[in-house]
Amino acid sequence: MTTPKRAAALVIGNELLSGKITELNVVVLARALRKLGIVLDRVLMIPDERPLIAKEVAALSATRDVVFTSGGVGPTHDDLTVDAVADAFGVAAVTHPKLEAMLRAYYRENLTEGHLLMARAPEGARLVATAEHPWPTIVKENVWVLPGVPQIFAMKMPVIAAELGGAAGFVSFATYTTLDEGPLKPLLDAVVAAYPAVEVGSYPQWQEPRFKTKVTFDGLDEARVRAARDAFAASLPSGTEVHVPEA
Amino acid sequence: MTTPKRAAALVIGNELLSGKITELNVVVLARALRKLGIVLDRVLMIPDERPLIAKEVAALSATRDVVFTSGGVGPTHDDLTVDAVADAFGVAAVTHPKLEAMLRAYYRENLTEGHLLMARAPEGARLVATAEHPWPTIVKENVWVLPGVPQIFAMKMPVIAAELGGAAGFVSFATYTTLDEGPLKPLLDAVVAAYPAVEVGSYPQWQEPRFKTKVTFDGLDEARVRAARDAFAASLPSGTEVHVPEA
Repeated sequence: MTTPKRAAALVIGNELLSGKITELNVVVLARALRKLGIVLDRVLMIPDERPLIAKEVAALSATRDVVFTSGGVGPTHDDLTVDAVADAFGVAAVTHPKLEAMLRAYYRENLTEGHLLMARAPEGARLVATAEHPWPTIVKENVWVLPGVPQIFAMKMPVIAAELGGAAGFVSFATYTTLDEGPLKPLLDAVVAAYPAVEVGSYPQWQEPRFKTKVTFDGLDEARVRAARDAFAASLPSGTEVHVPEA
Repeated sequence: MTTPKRAAALVIGNELLSGKITELNVVVLARALRKLGIVLDRVLMIPDERPLIAKEVAALSATRDVVFTSGGVGPTHDDLTVDAVADAFGVAAVTHPKLEAMLRAYYRENLTEGHLLMARAPEGARLVATAEHPWPTIVKENVWVLPGVPQIFAMKMPVIAAELGGAAGFVSFATYTTLDEGPLKPLLDAVVAAYPAVEVGSYPQWQEPRFKTKVTFDGLDEARVRAARDAFAASLPSGTEVHVPEA
């Protein structure tokens, strides 16, 4: 099995750190990457500060196969991501002729200088689009510059899949039990030790009348993941496993 | 005006990075801290890896006034936060007599070795509680160890307020306009330049029939924040401001 690609997300915006807006994009990205077999292993949320964004983009880009930024791509004073990504790679942000043409066609006589700021991209960036989602996404080296608005962010997921898909996705199975994590611990330790390639998660459920703990089994090798789940389920004391239909 | 305290959050859990669970605690913490006048300026989400958690706790603790961890505090193999926080401060995790007594009283004859793991705390940690929330929260130096389960996480906010409150909270005002960010940009630039102590945010609204952009004004000095908002509203072209009742 090849090593899966590693990804990081850099979520940008004072409005998230002040609690003015609830962050909604990370889970969407996480699920999309999971299906592509890409491991998201770091998410960082920071304020609208250009030098800080540039520093974090550079650090994440150097240590991950792919990086996704979220937010800060509009035309106003707090939209600094394009400039900061350019800074991170030591290039200028320049007006991209294709983006400019698309913005002129879209806004027509209502076009302002402000709108044209959205035509800027780091020098040497690629524009990625699909037939279904023709508005281009800016990708500089391994950094995808995604918008913060959740409806538009979500629309970018198929574009990412078209570009980065191909590997097998992670599979996930779950077992539900009436035991809480106290008595479960030795059973979990046993399955974790026996199946090192399978990621075992244990989640206490509150406000759930049918079971106390959901135990999940994840990995890239479906047969191994299934075997781990089955071994764990077989180790549960009689009558403590609960069958719950998948949501 | 004194400099506000700076805070960071360290959110721990593979289940969040894989998209199995939606992160719900950051916005709750952000709003609670905002009311206390504490600036949350970094949120980091990482996997269940003890050396990594320890490293990040140490880095955040050294650079922030207060740090909050979320998750990884149960008794199972993927609950590593208490050990990692201990590692970060170069101490051992030890069974805390008060936590042990409370767990014994709670579980009584159903108590297991697994449950007792939840009595562990980094050596020298404080236990913080209030009359309304008597279950103790572990605080080691400036690091609060909070549970990942959202219902319990939210219950900790009044405990944090009781311990860290006192400073004036941030105030926030908003103006709504039918203009989009293109024509708004010069007006925003003007108010940002004129009111450096006020944080100005501009948020395009999609799927909102009444206005196109929400502009927010935040700060610790209510009079200045109000003046910035009023100056900006006065600069809007006639008929483009929309009055929206506060939610």
